[in-house]
Amino acid sequence: MILKHLTTIVGEKHVLTGEKTEKYARDWLGKYIAKPTAVVRPANTAEVSKVVKYANRNGIVIVPISGNTGLVGGTYAPDVVMLSLERLNQIREIRASARIAVVGAGTILTNIHDAAAKHDLTFPLYFGARGSAMIGGNLSTNAGGSNVLRYGNTRALCLGLEVVLPDGEILNAMSELHKDNSGYDLKDLFIGAEGTLGIITAAVLKLSPQPQTYATAMVSAVSLCASLELLNRLQQATGGLVEAFEYMPRTYMERLKSEMPELRPPMGYDHDTTILLEVASTANRDSTLNDDGSSPLTKLVEETLAELIEEGLATDAVIANSDTQRATMWKIRESAAEITLNRLPMVDTDIAVPVDKVPEFMELALERLHKMDELADTITVSHLGDGNVHFTIWPSKDDPDFHDDIREMVEDVTLQLRGSFSAEHGIGLTKLNSMTRRKDAVAIDTMKKIKAALDPNNIMNPGKVLPE
Amino acid sequence: MILKHLTTIVGEKHVLTGEKTEKYARDWLGKYIAKPTAVVRPANTAEVSKVVKYANRNGIVIVPISGNTGLVGGTYAPDVVMLSLERLNQIREIRASARIAVVGAGTILTNIHDAAAKHDLTFPLYFGARGSAMIGGNLSTNAGGSNVLRYGNTRALCLGLEVVLPDGEILNAMSELHKDNSGYDLKDLFIGAEGTLGIITAAVLKLSPQPQTYATAMVSAVSLCASLELLNRLQQATGGLVEAFEYMPRTYMERLKSEMPELRPPMGYDHDTTILLEVASTANRDSTLNDDGSSPLTKLVEETLAELIEEGLATDAVIANSDTQRATMWKIRESAAEITLNRLPMVDTDIAVPVDKVPEFMELALERLHKMDELADTITVSHLGDGNVHFTIWPSKDDPDFHDDIREMVEDVTLQLRGSFSAEHGIGLTKLNSMTRRKDAVAIDTMKKIKAALDPNNIMNPGKVLPE
Repeated sequence: MILKHLTTIVGEKHVLTGEKTEKYARDWLGKYIAKPTAVVRPANTAEVSKVVKYANRNGIVIVPISGNTGLVGGTYAPDVVMLSLERLNQIREIRASARIAVVGAGTILTNIHDAAAKHDLTFPLYFGARGSAMIGGNLSTNAGGSNVLRYGNTRALCLGLEVVLPDGEILNAMSELHKDNSGYDLKDLFIGAEGTLGIITAAVLKLSPQPQTYATAMVSAVSLCASLELLNRLQQATGGLVEAFEYMPRTYMERLKSEMPELRPPMGYDHDTTILLEVASTANRDSTLNDDGSSPLTKLVEETLAELIEEGLATDAVIANSDTQRATMWKIRESAAEITLNRLPMVDTDIAVPVDKVPEFMELALERLHKMDELADTITVSHLGDGNVHFTIWPSKDDPDFHDDIREMVEDVTLQLRGSFSAEHGIGLTKLNSMTRRKDAVAIDTMKKIKAALDPNNIMNPGKVLPE
Repeated sequence: MILKHLTTIVGEKHVLTGEKTEKYARDWLGKYIAKPTAVVRPANTAEVSKVVKYANRNGIVIVPISGNTGLVGGTYAPDVVMLSLERLNQIREIRASARIAVVGAGTILTNIHDAAAKHDLTFPLYFGARGSAMIGGNLSTNAGGSNVLRYGNTRALCLGLEVVLPDGEILNAMSELHKDNSGYDLKDLFIGAEGTLGIITAAVLKLSPQPQTYATAMVSAVSLCASLELLNRLQQATGGLVEAFEYMPRTYMERLKSEMPELRPPMGYDHDTTILLEVASTANRDSTLNDDGSSPLTKLVEETLAELIEEGLATDAVIANSDTQRATMWKIRESAAEITLNRLPMVDTDIAVPVDKVPEFMELALERLHKMDELADTITVSHLGDGNVHFTIWPSKDDPDFHDDIREMVEDVTLQLRGSFSAEHGIGLTKLNSMTRRKDAVAIDTMKKIKAALDPNNIMNPGKVLPE
């Protein structure tokens, strides 16, 4: 009956059931595997609106899904209707003069990168899963990635939104403007709401000029503190042109060696503190070559690194001398998800602390972990420039309560350093306990009031983000 | 009875009535003058909370107020209780290593500038009224100003908030982090809500490194289009280091001449298109002087301006050669509010269009205005780099309906160019008609649902922002 009505909206071909739903129903980690009643694939915003109106009238729960590369179970959908945005994949417009892209929610992130590049522009949201992640999900989770340091997270990269609300009405907030103070900031409310307040169907994205020059390097620093000194010096020397500053400890490099031996890091694996950094400039003046063929930017990075080595803060550094070498360096860092997250069960965390507190976080968290579980295995990667650490733990016992105890310990250390238990992955299902324990009670109460006001029948991705 | 209870919370000295309320009750333009029942001046967040709890239980309307420099009647408070934040004026902390300032809502903007400067940092929110505006109001209106082009508006400059909600509960969202995805983005909902959803009592502000070098110039361009070409060239040459790009037409310069003859613009008054621009770099390398004593940045600006003049796009340009000259150039631009807004009655507008559409906006708006009212007088100033135009009109007839017709015409032209009728000043009372006419109905409905959910008794600054 439900399915029959849905086919009248989207066509028979686009209401999937049974086996055909499997690829939608399994999240990227394989941690959450559901059996949805059906997967509906509307063709456009009008069809999304019709599906949601019907669902709202009949109390049918909807779980929106795009690329499904989330890490917190935000799309888990047992016995409910999944609504896939994959057919809303049009890049409606790229207007170079206004530096904007207007895209459907199902557009794959890489496709936006490619389209922008044709206009010498960039959409600076980069992370490993960009080849399958879709912009609707990136917006709904306020995705972070490797360039937040320079460009901000997804929220900062979006000017306007189109949203199908829980009652099926279409909210048109497709502003192209950098200044618009006409009432409450609805855009930022829907960004990061993980589909619990409505379905993002389209967006106006902010593009940036494509850098003219890159300097990409791998550095072995003597400590995390020394790395932070390097970051500060680079920012000061270049006037804030650091685009990425990523930390990989020995545990990470060792795992890389065993899992992906073909990658061959330029300085080998035998370092406690490996940093991948990238500096980029959009200025014409930085693309004029020096006498020795290098760019002034590369030279600046070279000089700063030489200083650090001379002062004993770093032991080795390699600046990429080709696009291929640059790509390899990035592959080394971006393999993180692949080499760490495919080993279940684990406790994956995504914390943020003030940048200068990362060394203290690592020290305290490892010390307390080993008191709880001497045999626990760990791997860390970190967007160090943002104070964002992905500290993944494989406890020696497979006991959910014990796993939660470990998670709670990591939260303790994080909050002691005035950090957040959720930096860029969101809440979904995985972090509901953390929300209950750690989020300001008044904030949760306020969020629940907003949820109830916009979705009184609780049909939009219920049970996610907000604890019962 | 009400007043008596309020004195038990804040003390007798801080419940003002009668004449003592006058300086609070008159808005900056003198357009809205009210007789509030009382002005209450709590000492801290706890007292704000107590006042609001009492008000909420008894259905007493509260209008929060800080520096009262708004331009849209957002603090108009007839027969109600005004709550002044002026005593919450502590700079609680400046932490240079984390580049943050933690401040009370009543802190005057200039005091934040001064405190940050002591740490070689800057809080890049600048506009004429900064000597009396307070950060609580800046946040509540998401203030813009002259540096949005480089640093974003107030929303982009704030990491965390403390808010007293309409039920008197205290929301603690004082995050210091650049990445924090733990539930809905409440911070950005309260920023720009003009006190209708709660009272902002404190904030964590993002500081930026103080530029090492400035190049400030006044330029006479041959047209608005030529000015935009200049902006693009400067951004390209410097890699996006333009901090301000302000447009003053002949009408503005003439009024400046008659009202403030002491200011003496370096190139005189006789130009159709005067631009004030500022480029700034935080990089060490840009502060090393050239052989002739200039900085590389100044040289770059000089070269770009020389090119423009050679190509016939500009006729004259002066680069400030001292801090005094730089200050004068800024005074010329920042006198705008003083020399335009003190002549009532007027139709003041605050529109934004895509940057490349500003010339078309000016042409269409002036043409249509003069069809409606041949004798109307106008003055324009514009944050041209943001596409934000303040087009002020003195119609020849003093008839409110006719004034609204003119406002509607300006909105028509704006929307035709995909712009917003409210760029940086907000809605308050002045723009309620525009909201009704122009804002997406679904957006208004969504805002009303949020307002009703958080303020069911409608005690927080009712009648502002959202049309009945």
